[in-house]
Amino acid sequence: MAKESGAFTEAQVIAALKEIFASADPRISIGIGDDAAVVSGGERQILTTDMAVEGVHFRTDWSSAFEIGRKVTAANCADVLAMSGTTNYLLVAVALTGSESMQWISDLARGIKFEADLAGAQVVGGDLSRATSVVISITAIGSTVNAIARNGAKVGDGIYLSSLTGWSAAGLAIMESKFAPVTDAHAVAVGEYKSPAIDYSFDASKATAMCDVSDALLEQARQMAEASGVQFTFDEKLIAAMPEFAELNSVADDLNQSVWQFIFAGGEDHVLLATGNNLPGARIGEVQAGSGLSGVPTSVKTKIWKHFN
Amino acid sequence: MAKESGAFTEAQVIAALKEIFASADPRISIGIGDDAAVVSGGERQILTTDMAVEGVHFRTDWSSAFEIGRKVTAANCADVLAMSGTTNYLLVAVALTGSESMQWISDLARGIKFEADLAGAQVVGGDLSRATSVVISITAIGSTVNAIARNGAKVGDGIYLSSLTGWSAAGLAIMESKFAPVTDAHAVAVGEYKSPAIDYSFDASKATAMCDVSDALLEQARQMAEASGVQFTFDEKLIAAMPEFAELNSVADDLNQSVWQFIFAGGEDHVLLATGNNLPGARIGEVQAGSGLSGVPTSVKTKIWKHFN
Repeated sequence: MAKESGAFTEAQVIAALKEIFASADPRISIGIGDDAAVVSGGERQILTTDMAVEGVHFRTDWSSAFEIGRKVTAANCADVLAMSGTTNYLLVAVALTGSESMQWISDLARGIKFEADLAGAQVVGGDLSRATSVVISITAIGSTVNAIARNGAKVGDGIYLSSLTGWSAAGLAIMESKFAPVTDAHAVAVGEYKSPAIDYSFDASKATAMCDVSDALLEQARQMAEASGVQFTFDEKLIAAMPEFAELNSVADDLNQSVWQFIFAGGEDHVLLATGNNLPGARIGEVQAGSGLSGVPTSVKTKIWKHFN
Repeated sequence: MAKESGAFTEAQVIAALKEIFASADPRISIGIGDDAAVVSGGERQILTTDMAVEGVHFRTDWSSAFEIGRKVTAANCADVLAMSGTTNYLLVAVALTGSESMQWISDLARGIKFEADLAGAQVVGGDLSRATSVVISITAIGSTVNAIARNGAKVGDGIYLSSLTGWSAAGLAIMESKFAPVTDAHAVAVGEYKSPAIDYSFDASKATAMCDVSDALLEQARQMAEASGVQFTFDEKLIAAMPEFAELNSVADDLNQSVWQFIFAGGEDHVLLATGNNLPGARIGEVQAGSGLSGVPTSVKTKIWKHFN
């Protein structure tokens, strides 16, 4: 589709977005178009926001607008999920450079709508700005009966992952290396980098603590262990027994990289890390007395998370 | 204060922000630091988001970080106010360039906190990113008993402004012209441009329709008239009789510009435009049968709001 910068007004963009995000949800009294949306609230509300910047969190030459829309929406909905909540409403603030086509903008909105539908959420408002690179800032408003924080892990709990981490980092490594994806596993990795699949049906009702793995698993586990005053002890053998491990390992081999580095230091998978007993997903270790982490393969190099990203 | 880029980590920034935004509000179960905040909700909730971009909405060489923080927060709280609501919670997503000092970042947070305090709101979460220019995206979550939309204006209603529009545009004109502010009125205009004063106590209980004047008064009135299926008829004499008019007029004279252009086409004042009878503020016209606007001074040049900003 040819670029058609300037060929449309803000009013036309808003009209297109209104149509894409149209909702007959009876909880929405006033949707897009007034100063603010008016919606039915919940007793226990979950609020979170996540900003994604072109060149830092996504590349428009690597991902389609639809994929970018899905990814940023998923990052927000995953945070609500990580509190054991459901996302009800989304607000979307976007800065555009002015060189986007109406098609690109609509595709971005359709990606947001697609992921919102998976999460059961409605887009009720937003804001359009101008900037020198595309910035997408989404806020998710959810509800829960029983919020699960990071600080409830207890000695004797199992450590669970809703699915294997590392896929997104493996996908990024494929994109960066310009290694052409050939196997199904390569395609899965690239897909997970572009729009990670979120476990919206994960039943966390028995979890004692939970967190969304947006940064590295190492970093998130360290935060949960610290908040809970316990030690997280990983079991390499349990991780290697996960059904997805062999496939991710084959991708790592093809890239001449370490699968453990992807799993522990990758990030952006939006997998759920939870503690408790008899949880869904895979048990990968145990909560023990002490502090910090143990059982992390010695080959894993800890990135220093010095700068915000 | 010397720049000290890279001299601090994301964790240090978050620790400083946590301290600035610390709250003992019993409605907040989980605040900054987990995947998301958990708060008490309301039956009727108001949701709005507003993004501000360096170079488009503010200039770091013109406004202090404190002023910028206030301004972006005010823009969000004004939207909640315009639905006849109170802002309860704020989420703040900020992209920094990496060249900001810790002092600048803290001042930005203190400006946000200052305005949030005026609005009666608590900052419960946020996100930090990296970008090539500073981007601040705030979401306000409010509540109301009776939301007032844009589409309820009725023939025979008066048109009211909570205070005179045009001050922010006059302040911007002073900044752009490098005209040194000398009078109190000049200083007020510059102050209103940097951090507009919001009428948090405006009693809108009798309003039939209401809107926040973030764009030009002309544009907002046109939107309300269209949504309500009526005509907005302004009365120049009533506007000229407003107590602030003479002062704003003196600023316009000093700049060799038209006071009516500032008032009708200025924008970013975040004054409330409401319809009804016996409302607070100043009556500036009447809602009549018909469509569009009348009574706008012929000298006012309508800007074409072609590009988003």
